[in-house]
Amino acid sequence: MAKDKKEVREITDMDVDFAQWYTDVVIKADLIGYTSVKGCMAFKPAGYAIWENIQRELDKRFKETGVENVYMPIFIPESLLEKEKDHVEGFAPEVAWVTKGGLNDLQEPLCVRPTSETLFCDFYAKDIQSYRDLPRLYNQWCSVVRWEKETRPFLRSREFLWQEGHTAHATAEEARERTELMLNVYAKFAEEVLAIPVIKGQKTPKEKFAGAEATYTIESLMHDGKALQCGTSHDFGDGFARAFGVQYTDKDNKLQYVYQTSWGMTTRMIGALIMVHGDNSGLVLPPAIAPTQITIIPIAMHKGGVLEEAQKLYDRLQAAGYRVKMDDTDNKPGWKFAEAEMRGIPIRIEFGPKDIEAQQAVIARRDTKEKITVPLAQLEEKVAETMKQMQHDMLEAARKRMNEHTYVARSYEEFKDTIANKPGFVKAMWCGDQACEDKIKEETTATSRCMPFEQEHISDVCVCCGRPAKKMVYWGKAY
Amino acid sequence: MAKDKKEVREITDMDVDFAQWYTDVVIKADLIGYTSVKGCMAFKPAGYAIWENIQRELDKRFKETGVENVYMPIFIPESLLEKEKDHVEGFAPEVAWVTKGGLNDLQEPLCVRPTSETLFCDFYAKDIQSYRDLPRLYNQWCSVVRWEKETRPFLRSREFLWQEGHTAHATAEEARERTELMLNVYAKFAEEVLAIPVIKGQKTPKEKFAGAEATYTIESLMHDGKALQCGTSHDFGDGFARAFGVQYTDKDNKLQYVYQTSWGMTTRMIGALIMVHGDNSGLVLPPAIAPTQITIIPIAMHKGGVLEEAQKLYDRLQAAGYRVKMDDTDNKPGWKFAEAEMRGIPIRIEFGPKDIEAQQAVIARRDTKEKITVPLAQLEEKVAETMKQMQHDMLEAARKRMNEHTYVARSYEEFKDTIANKPGFVKAMWCGDQACEDKIKEETTATSRCMPFEQEHISDVCVCCGRPAKKMVYWGKAY
Repeated sequence: MAKDKKEVREITDMDVDFAQWYTDVVIKADLIGYTSVKGCMAFKPAGYAIWENIQRELDKRFKETGVENVYMPIFIPESLLEKEKDHVEGFAPEVAWVTKGGLNDLQEPLCVRPTSETLFCDFYAKDIQSYRDLPRLYNQWCSVVRWEKETRPFLRSREFLWQEGHTAHATAEEARERTELMLNVYAKFAEEVLAIPVIKGQKTPKEKFAGAEATYTIESLMHDGKALQCGTSHDFGDGFARAFGVQYTDKDNKLQYVYQTSWGMTTRMIGALIMVHGDNSGLVLPPAIAPTQITIIPIAMHKGGVLEEAQKLYDRLQAAGYRVKMDDTDNKPGWKFAEAEMRGIPIRIEFGPKDIEAQQAVIARRDTKEKITVPLAQLEEKVAETMKQMQHDMLEAARKRMNEHTYVARSYEEFKDTIANKPGFVKAMWCGDQACEDKIKEETTATSRCMPFEQEHISDVCVCCGRPAKKMVYWGKAY
Repeated sequence: MAKDKKEVREITDMDVDFAQWYTDVVIKADLIGYTSVKGCMAFKPAGYAIWENIQRELDKRFKETGVENVYMPIFIPESLLEKEKDHVEGFAPEVAWVTKGGLNDLQEPLCVRPTSETLFCDFYAKDIQSYRDLPRLYNQWCSVVRWEKETRPFLRSREFLWQEGHTAHATAEEARERTELMLNVYAKFAEEVLAIPVIKGQKTPKEKFAGAEATYTIESLMHDGKALQCGTSHDFGDGFARAFGVQYTDKDNKLQYVYQTSWGMTTRMIGALIMVHGDNSGLVLPPAIAPTQITIIPIAMHKGGVLEEAQKLYDRLQAAGYRVKMDDTDNKPGWKFAEAEMRGIPIRIEFGPKDIEAQQAVIARRDTKEKITVPLAQLEEKVAETMKQMQHDMLEAARKRMNEHTYVARSYEEFKDTIANKPGFVKAMWCGDQACEDKIKEETTATSRCMPFEQEHISDVCVCCGRPAKKMVYWGKAY
């Protein structure tokens, strides 16, 4: 038989095997393709279009805060990577090394950038001279490489796409403010655009970025109760500046070191979208990020006037600024419905001869699968309402789920029992000692996700060792 | 002395030393910075913003022809690169090899993509099954690496940014049409947006892309009379499909090979913008591509009302959709004029107390340096007119220059004399034999730029060997 009949096949039930459900969605929603390059993936149009929308939205928000885009080299000479001690220790074990260029061995190996702090510092050391040059608020969109052993589409791969912002400031305070500002940009973007609720907080010293003084993070909870780090913002103080000699002349004509930050968000957010909003029919995309927001499915297409009238709806919705598609392929309507659901298109419009007669259309919401019949005269208005409601409801549904799966533990027994039996976040007090973090990770596989900015007083003592507690921490198993 | 006073210094005269003039402009217009990574450059905000505008304009034009964006891996396993014989011979000598990942040597070396035909073929072999899957019209925006020995900013570097389109079709004819279509997209973009006139034609077999059946090209002429290849579009026939087994089931249920194309345009177009339009005051950017289209320079800023009134002009022009900046730094107006010229900002508006009194502003065009005084009431209208005229005039001025530096040679003596003494294109007949191309290159350093689609009959015989001529060819020294 010819291999030409594509079908929307069943996907694994997410409650039966979440990992397999995830893989099924990634493949059947046509987001990625596997490649012959181990650990690397091919972004197909449906997957890449989500990233393009993420880029457009984030880039706009960055630029509103004064950020400018630049582009630094893809390679880092070994000697440059080694200049900041903590940084090289953190990254050297997971980089890919170029040792040969053309037909010759290189005198010095170059790593393919795993992150570009060293390149930006090297650049800033030449670029920044006076206090008039500050702040420098640069960002780049690029791909980075980390030699991961186990990989999963979007969540962990040897190459991924991201943006990395790198700023330089005259004072420590200004750098701290920028670190917080960018974390808030990420948090607002995650909630407003991706409809993903997040916890904002600071990483423990053990979990912070290699070379940072402080790492701020937004953490979210997936459908299976596992945590996902969604974006991080690092305050470097003047550590990198001292290692790389990034100095400026201040108003009093004295040489000073700059204070730096970096912050990044990656294609793993596509994985987050899948795992926060998806269901057993496939992907569910919030209207604000969906590459296709509306699909029109004509019913009884062959009947006179149906396609023409459907085309009018298409034209109206496109004129109203929506990203709309018409599915006039020769598949059966039921198949088209299933495919639109698999691909997570927020709104499906069903439209056939009966609707033409009644001058109405049927609007189906992807998240709730609710259908409403609307008069054609009110089409744009009802679509706008439905999208706005859906964007709101998806965030609130995810927030409710996150709250319902956030537990409190006052004793270590309670902590271990919760981690073992109740997938989700566990809030518990911590003494600040890494030994407790290590013990918890070893005995439960949970890690500290963050010390939330909104602290709560759960008890006076560390959940692990019983000594006086310093911080309330979110713990959880994580991707 | 503090290193805080930035000045617009003199640049080398382009007629004295064009190469040094180019380097001066690249640096003093703040387009790039040198890096510690040999042969790689750092795009600074002013340089990267031009690329962002090129991307936005081209991407829109691609999508209008049905193209979708995807993203393939950065690495190519050695065995994959070797699948198409001509292709590997063309690229293997100039690729960078990753031989170590993390702490281990790789079993198979991976090259950093110099171009991605092999990756797309590998992908298509799995992705394409039926005639219903065709055509596939994919493109990606990425960076590629070629281990060049001699590098120059934008024109030739070890890493550069580009887009590469890769399409698959059911028939040879459809592939040929797509190859031509994309060449026309490039040509229109170059002329309409970059104001760079181009010659459209086909590369000789010697100069075509490694693995292509035919390579189409657009060629332009720089200010110094050297040619620059601006964009290429390749027709692969079914060569790659046969090497990689990219097959589909046709309507009669038979397996067929697909026909493919690829096409690319790169950051070297920024070099073309500099070398086609620049002058001894620096960069000159066409309004359609300039990141900043208008700079407002308030005169006698300290006088009451000047900044406030200038701000009103800024607000009006921004509301009218222009990319506008206000230079209210504490530098002198003369310095600001020179800097705006160095950076190639199309329109400068001078505005001081006398202008406020007369309710007028002075508009200066960057290309002709012409100044006109316009009533404030007509500001938007006059700015729009000026920009439109400037965009038009820049293209026509460049076309005139190209035509004036395009010569005809009927004998080999005349050919050699022209190449040696008159920088520009030389149109001359060619027998079709590579031996003549080789001889011409060896004896004059000129190469065949293209066999233009618009053929002219200059003589009956090859300019080199005197045998019957097959094609009229554009020859020239090239970047």
